[in-house]
Amino acid sequence: MELGLIGLGKMGGNMRERIRRAGHTVIGYDRNPDLADVHSLKELVDALHGPRVVWVMVPAGQATQSTIDELGELLSPGDLVVDGGNSRWTDDEKHAGELAAKGIGFVDCGVSGGVWGLANGYALMYGGKAEDVAKAQPIFDALKPEGDSGSVHAGKVGAGHFAKMVHNGIEYAMMQAYAEGWELLEAVDSVTDVREVFRSWKSGTVIRSWLLDLAVDALDKSEHLDKLRGYADDSGEGRWTVEAAIDNAVPLPAITASLFARFSSRQDDSPQMKMIAALRNEFGGHAVTAAE
Amino acid sequence: MELGLIGLGKMGGNMRERIRRAGHTVIGYDRNPDLADVHSLKELVDALHGPRVVWVMVPAGQATQSTIDELGELLSPGDLVVDGGNSRWTDDEKHAGELAAKGIGFVDCGVSGGVWGLANGYALMYGGKAEDVAKAQPIFDALKPEGDSGSVHAGKVGAGHFAKMVHNGIEYAMMQAYAEGWELLEAVDSVTDVREVFRSWKSGTVIRSWLLDLAVDALDKSEHLDKLRGYADDSGEGRWTVEAAIDNAVPLPAITASLFARFSSRQDDSPQMKMIAALRNEFGGHAVTAAE
Amino acid sequence: MELGLIGLGKMGGNMRERIRRAGHTVIGYDRNPDLADVHSLKELVDALHGPRVVWVMVPAGQATQSTIDELGELLSPGDLVVDGGNSRWTDDEKHAGELAAKGIGFVDCGVSGGVWGLANGYALMYGGKAEDVAKAQPIFDALKPEGDSGSVHAGKVGAGHFAKMVHNGIEYAMMQAYAEGWELLEAVDSVTDVREVFRSWKSGTVIRSWLLDLAVDALDKSEHLDKLRGYADDSGEGRWTVEAAIDNAVPLPAITASLFARFSSRQDDSPQMKMIAALRNEFGGHAVTAAE
Amino acid sequence: MELGLIGLGKMGGNMRERIRRAGHTVIGYDRNPDLADVHSLKELVDALHGPRVVWVMVPAGQATQSTIDELGELLSPGDLVVDGGNSRWTDDEKHAGELAAKGIGFVDCGVSGGVWGLANGYALMYGGKAEDVAKAQPIFDALKPEGDSGSVHAGKVGAGHFAKMVHNGIEYAMMQAYAEGWELLEAVDSVTDVREVFRSWKSGTVIRSWLLDLAVDALDKSEHLDKLRGYADDSGEGRWTVEAAIDNAVPLPAITASLFARFSSRQDDSPQMKMIAALRNEFGGHAVTAAE
Repeated sequence: MELGLIGLGKMGGNMRERIRRAGHTVIGYDRNPDLADVHSLKELVDALHGPRVVWVMVPAGQATQSTIDELGELLSPGDLVVDGGNSRWTDDEKHAGELAAKGIGFVDCGVSGGVWGLANGYALMYGGKAEDVAKAQPIFDALKPEGDSGSVHAGKVGAGHFAKMVHNGIEYAMMQAYAEGWELLEAVDSVTDVREVFRSWKSGTVIRSWLLDLAVDALDKSEHLDKLRGYADDSGEGRWTVEAAIDNAVPLPAITASLFARFSSRQDDSPQMKMIAALRNEFGGHAVTAAE
Repeated sequence: MELGLIGLGKMGGNMRERIRRAGHTVIGYDRNPDLADVHSLKELVDALHGPRVVWVMVPAGQATQSTIDELGELLSPGDLVVDGGNSRWTDDEKHAGELAAKGIGFVDCGVSGGVWGLANGYALMYGGKAEDVAKAQPIFDALKPEGDSGSVHAGKVGAGHFAKMVHNGIEYAMMQAYAEGWELLEAVDSVTDVREVFRSWKSGTVIRSWLLDLAVDALDKSEHLDKLRGYADDSGEGRWTVEAAIDNAVPLPAITASLFARFSSRQDDSPQMKMIAALRNEFGGHAVTAAE
Repeated sequence: MELGLIGLGKMGGNMRERIRRAGHTVIGYDRNPDLADVHSLKELVDALHGPRVVWVMVPAGQATQSTIDELGELLSPGDLVVDGGNSRWTDDEKHAGELAAKGIGFVDCGVSGGVWGLANGYALMYGGKAEDVAKAQPIFDALKPEGDSGSVHAGKVGAGHFAKMVHNGIEYAMMQAYAEGWELLEAVDSVTDVREVFRSWKSGTVIRSWLLDLAVDALDKSEHLDKLRGYADDSGEGRWTVEAAIDNAVPLPAITASLFARFSSRQDDSPQMKMIAALRNEFGGHAVTAAE
Repeated sequence: MELGLIGLGKMGGNMRERIRRAGHTVIGYDRNPDLADVHSLKELVDALHGPRVVWVMVPAGQATQSTIDELGELLSPGDLVVDGGNSRWTDDEKHAGELAAKGIGFVDCGVSGGVWGLANGYALMYGGKAEDVAKAQPIFDALKPEGDSGSVHAGKVGAGHFAKMVHNGIEYAMMQAYAEGWELLEAVDSVTDVREVFRSWKSGTVIRSWLLDLAVDALDKSEHLDKLRGYADDSGEGRWTVEAAIDNAVPLPAITASLFARFSSRQDDSPQMKMIAALRNEFGGHAVTAAE
């Protein structure tokens, strides 16, 4: 089938390649003309035969909103927009409504795969009406990993991004789990080869996983990770997961602890611990440490 | 080689079988005569040719201590005891010292594998002197999963149980990660098929793992787990992990949150939340809920 | 001075009384005619001499929004609206803007005091322009406790509700602190009189506080709180505090733990712990507990 | 009455003074002869008329153990030892047993008061048999603050130190509560005067407390605490509180989060966050930050 693909960065570029390998036609647009097949959204829409399917793979927020706005002007009733970016799930219903007013369908799709997706396939979680999902199904099938799993019609509009968001929340806590264990092993004298302990866990243990494999890869590059700073960004989905939990009164202690650990990692000095130090000094005369 | 194996329960019985399949001779003792090859520790020791290797696979604490005490009386200099039970790592140095005074070697070995070990192999983490480990190496090789990983000489005496303990701590937080994500997905209306979301994650995602596979197995048995109570025991290693972290001033927020979630799950009613309810009533006149 | 006061419930009714005791004129409106001095907002506005000050003390959200909308129609340029309800601080800028378009001033005011406010005074945190705050200052002075502290001009519009929200977040964690300590004391045999331990802490300790006094009052009514269920509601500010922290990448581990403890307290059974139980059964054959 | 007091440091020295002001005779011993009234434990014991009461106020652990050992040799049946140091409560039963074998009584006493105790009195929590407590009661009465509260016979031997330990655990979480709130207020633009917000909270709020008063004192010395490093030691009781909770399967999420925040504050760089950064790089190609 034919697909219009908007956004050909690290993710989108590889996805175009994987879809083409599956025998589909992809017309790609990117603001960077060196990456693009066509040079405007209008050109892209004109080049597709109707009913069109257009996949949006641009940064969440303003870029996605303006792309959807423009597509709303250019597309025709019966066409379909798939938002494959990292949009917040609460945006999806709004986008679907705006497009539905013009007779255009909408599916949201969370995509996991990172730098490994081209070779291994992309895990896909999508939400929307069955008839809309059906229009994009050949593309989903091209992108997903081989085998029985790797893609899911998770529910209504918004369910795809919601499921991907929860995936990332779980990812935060799993990474934190390995990281805490690693730090504790490194802290004791009796364990003399922490890297080999991690490697041993790759088989037969309860905690074997792809993330564990990656941890061993990282330790093979640098046994004690001493070239790295203990500094971790977060990309939004962890925060949204906690916010969704708060909205639903669901306790998420481990995921939230993992998010907060990242916040702390980015502070040169901790304001709250200044207050703790100050209070200890006030009531107990405990020594404080001067800022540098 | 020959091995004496003490404790032929759910774990020990299957381990005997796996070691025998690898061509070794195992003489097993258990308090339950229906399971045992010999009927006393003395008989077991007499049946082995020196230098002997005896693997202790009995409950941690008093049972392990008294078995090691008795073996200290029965074995000869040059023999070796392997403690493969769930002993606390702080016991290992004591046991090693008691046996060393009689010329008997000691290796501690953490074993992971549960009900899957007979078929897939047991992950092993062991600690002790190189010459002691070498004596038991053929048994370790028979028990471990096939392939490059699955067993490790983690360090000095105690390092094996320490590594296994940390493994379990990580396991607590990984399970909690999936559990939190599952509850959040179940809480929202837009996601209409949570089980299929979990199944889709088995391929191509960052969070794919053996535990995830098991979660899907469980959901296939009961889609919403509504036959189960939200009640989770803990078996000691999680507690010891947190205690070891405290001893080493290592922060373990996600693992500890997972342990506390289990504690809470076992309370019919929460005393601390009674106090919260009482305080809210005192300062704000907020309604309280009467105990049943 | 003259004040129009809208909302005469548990809080508003006592506030009217305290302001009148200070010698000011209060004209009160409530949907319940038994409580009200006037019977419509129009009547209230007509009864006040300009420039008017009208204090809104109704539930946050829709009720506050519609009250402010109606006041925007009724009031005149130079008048002032004070929102003393529990509005989310992110609403304040919107309300200020809507009123400013009509020349009407706006101040947001967080109010603490509960059932104790009439006697002891209400702690007030307000935000807005200095000239707007000045118009309401006599009312703030009438409501606040005696002495040097108890009220503050915290900053711009929104700062009052923000400060009150953080106050409540701190309150959550302080209550949790006492509650955790109480549960631990109750759990051990050696401490035979937990209530008297709490009472002893009222003097000379680092943790003496008004909340501790209330805890002792509660224990005097019921030594082990055994008439209460461990069930705690939350009223929004705790959630908003965590959301504000996430927006600002500030780690709030203790406050968030306190919020999650309340969420858990309201679950008859924990979905996430069902998943933990199911996983333990899958990998280890551990027993599960059937739902009732 | 007469008291022998061993340990005349920051705490013990002021306690001697407060007891003397109450009209009692105190004979003090310290390793530092400049502080001491007598120059050996033997001299101290000889100077007291029987039945003697000797208060031990030396560092927990080895110093306390050896002092109690020596007193066991020097004292006579019917005498009493009070351990007022920061001993772990699990040591108390051992000490009581050792002394009981010689007919000597034992009371453990947790003391709170810090640098404020001389003027305001020391909060006291003690454990032991009623007849032993009675012997030391005049000293407890001299040390405690004026008024109805401030001291308690908490239970059996060990209960005093246990109650003091829990006091400190609560203290950790209360300090963390204020610290988290302060950091959040400092993080937003709309709140322009955080210090005055804190000061305002001293009256009429739910969160007024002595610790809040101290926080305001600290902010009056340095409005943004910018001379301090966010570095906080811990003195043992917080760790023991968490360990006691683990022993009793009591969840302590807020207190434990507070302890872990202190651990993190003392790390120049976080090993666990190095692992998080490494994993993010492995699966997503996310940039890492090099160590300096």
